[in-house]
Amino acid sequence: MTPFCAAIDWGTSAFRLWIFAGDGTVLAERRSDDGMFRAADDGFAVILERHLAELGVAADLPAIICGMAGARQGWREAGYLDTPCNVADIIGRALRVDDHPRDVRILPGIAQRDARAPDVLRGEETQLLGLVAEGLRSGVVCMPGTHSKWVTLGAGKVESFSTYMTGELFAVLSRCSILGAAMTGGVDVSPDSPAFLAAAASVLDSRAPVSNLLFQVRAGQLLGFAPPAEGAARLSGLLIGLELAGAVTRLGAGTEIVLAASGGLGALYQAVMEARGLTVRVCEADIAVRRGLWSAARAIWGTHGKQSHAS
Amino acid sequence: MTPFCAAIDWGTSAFRLWIFAGDGTVLAERRSDDGMFRAADDGFAVILERHLAELGVAADLPAIICGMAGARQGWREAGYLDTPCNVADIIGRALRVDDHPRDVRILPGIAQRDARAPDVLRGEETQLLGLVAEGLRSGVVCMPGTHSKWVTLGAGKVESFSTYMTGELFAVLSRCSILGAAMTGGVDVSPDSPAFLAAAASVLDSRAPVSNLLFQVRAGQLLGFAPPAEGAARLSGLLIGLELAGAVTRLGAGTEIVLAASGGLGALYQAVMEARGLTVRVCEADIAVRRGLWSAARAIWGTHGKQSHAS
Repeated sequence: MTPFCAAIDWGTSAFRLWIFAGDGTVLAERRSDDGMFRAADDGFAVILERHLAELGVAADLPAIICGMAGARQGWREAGYLDTPCNVADIIGRALRVDDHPRDVRILPGIAQRDARAPDVLRGEETQLLGLVAEGLRSGVVCMPGTHSKWVTLGAGKVESFSTYMTGELFAVLSRCSILGAAMTGGVDVSPDSPAFLAAAASVLDSRAPVSNLLFQVRAGQLLGFAPPAEGAARLSGLLIGLELAGAVTRLGAGTEIVLAASGGLGALYQAVMEARGLTVRVCEADIAVRRGLWSAARAIWGTHGKQSHAS
Repeated sequence: MTPFCAAIDWGTSAFRLWIFAGDGTVLAERRSDDGMFRAADDGFAVILERHLAELGVAADLPAIICGMAGARQGWREAGYLDTPCNVADIIGRALRVDDHPRDVRILPGIAQRDARAPDVLRGEETQLLGLVAEGLRSGVVCMPGTHSKWVTLGAGKVESFSTYMTGELFAVLSRCSILGAAMTGGVDVSPDSPAFLAAAASVLDSRAPVSNLLFQVRAGQLLGFAPPAEGAARLSGLLIGLELAGAVTRLGAGTEIVLAASGGLGALYQAVMEARGLTVRVCEADIAVRRGLWSAARAIWGTHGKQSHAS
């Protein structure tokens, strides 16, 4: 099949690229750590063209991009739509990179310009576009990650959202703080780990002394109450529990949570949510973002696979 | 006056040394950043002797030490007393460094061997000894710092305590996380800052979504709601508020808090506590630890200033 377009999810530290045929079939896929941080050094255009050249695609194949490539410190600042907004409206606001020979469009993020709860997301709007394309209209969507997003969707609109720094807190505390000494067992966490589930429950069940519980991860090991192998499970449980403690209290009783996550992280969130008695529907975040990029590409460049987009 | 002993508060990153006369007068004082981290490289004995040589003190002047020099990764592990314990009992448990020509004693820390709330402190026990020497018998003592300690004291005994990672959270988040981008105004915080007090109140006043509020420090700047100069005030307010939210809910109504702190940090805690309607008594932590070291030295080596300790 003839390639129709390239689609890139360009995150802070990760780069994922797909080549779509005109019917949405994925012809090729690449994953690398050429995220925004590396691209800021090497150049976004250089990295994109290198990946496309290695796949041997034509110089006029267009590319649709979401994520941090559209941030202020990215390739081009693609701006934000403001809440409340139709998810599909991100397509019309895609920014064309004007000084690049290939037709490259970068999707905007979404901003919540509310002085009481200012917030931004970038990349997750494309996952949401994919979920809407699959039929989701309303509900609460949790997208775990470095900066976890909780989005309230109503009739295809993003009504409001909140970011929780869970993944970044885990990273900086396990690498840069005294809790690094508690991670000698590695940072892999099993959703079945009793230490993980107990730590999450300890933050969820009361007005917990959070930064005291964090220190106990280390003190418990020093005093022989907790094996070093459980350090990561405890820290992860505390931080996911802390996120849910904030997010879940804002939900109505019986609200179903759409959990859009990939791999092991999704299983951790699902375990804590189900232990808490919440109703969870799991979606694959990778598939959602790919579907969102495809929706945007099809809307921008047509649906027939003819390379009419080459200008 | 003749020097009676040297006294050292040897912290993770700071080193403070005093030379006492036999009546407790301070004859000399030194402060440096030769803390445990540097001493682990250069050697504790080398650093101590260098400082003492620069002051020209005799080779047989004894030295009393508290703090991280007694940690597992310190000079010699000085162990812990277990709660509940008389603060004064740390003196009898001072560890003599057996392979050093000078008479050097390291005071132990205190451990709370409670599987539900395991905790350790090291250095603060000597501040407590100083406060007890000044007449404090019972009450709640808050000692802010990298790892803030809240100690419940009853009849001169440490009944229980809790560590909050407040200072370390501020350090790692402002240096290693996305919030570093929100600190362009520097990390000095004024206790009068409305942004600081509002941030503290936002965590204290409800079941706050902590890791969401942390992200808002940055998002508020990105969207123009918060000036970059206020970033540190907001982060500091959130983290001190988070500590108090955990610690204060454990106190009885009307409990007076003894705040043992030094310099600007004490003023920040005092401002948040008083805004919350708490009764605070402020003590100088520097004076408390010096007084504690003096109490221990006098008990170990006598009170008459004669150098009978030289063995």
